[in-house]
Amino acid sequence: MEKVTLSVSGMSCGHCERAVKGALEGLNGVHHVTVYLQEGKVDVEFDATKVDIAVLKQAIEEQGYDVA
Amino acid sequence: MEKVTLSVSGMSCGHCERAVKGALEGLNGVHHVTVYLQEGKVDVEFDATKVDIAVLKQAIEEQGYDVA
Repeated sequence: MEKVTLSVSGMSCGHCERAVKGALEGLNGVHHVTVYLQEGKVDVEFDATKVDIAVLKQAIEEQGYDVA
Repeated sequence: MEKVTLSVSGMSCGHCERAVKGALEGLNGVHHVTVYLQEGKVDVEFDATKVDIAVLKQAIEEQGYDVA
């Protein structure tokens, strides 16, 4: 299991938090997601044999947020 | 038909806009809702024989936003 902290801009409310969290949790290989709304950070625990960071970033961006 | 402009604080993104708009449009007697996200304003056209401003305010507050 790996863990990455992504910097995500544009998350402004609880709806945003749920949109990002839900998109990531829907990916095969993602085990746990914690969104820090105020800090603009998302912690993701994932199985690197099933999913990679590029896919995580894409899922966030598809929800309309930018990943640093 | 009457029209009121409500000042709503806490709407920060498109999800907020849709939550407020959807809650108001679900009320009997509400005909048209326009949300101005940047300005924190919501215009509501409604039939005053079916719904009143107190009910409009309550619907917004139930979504988690404050009405001035």
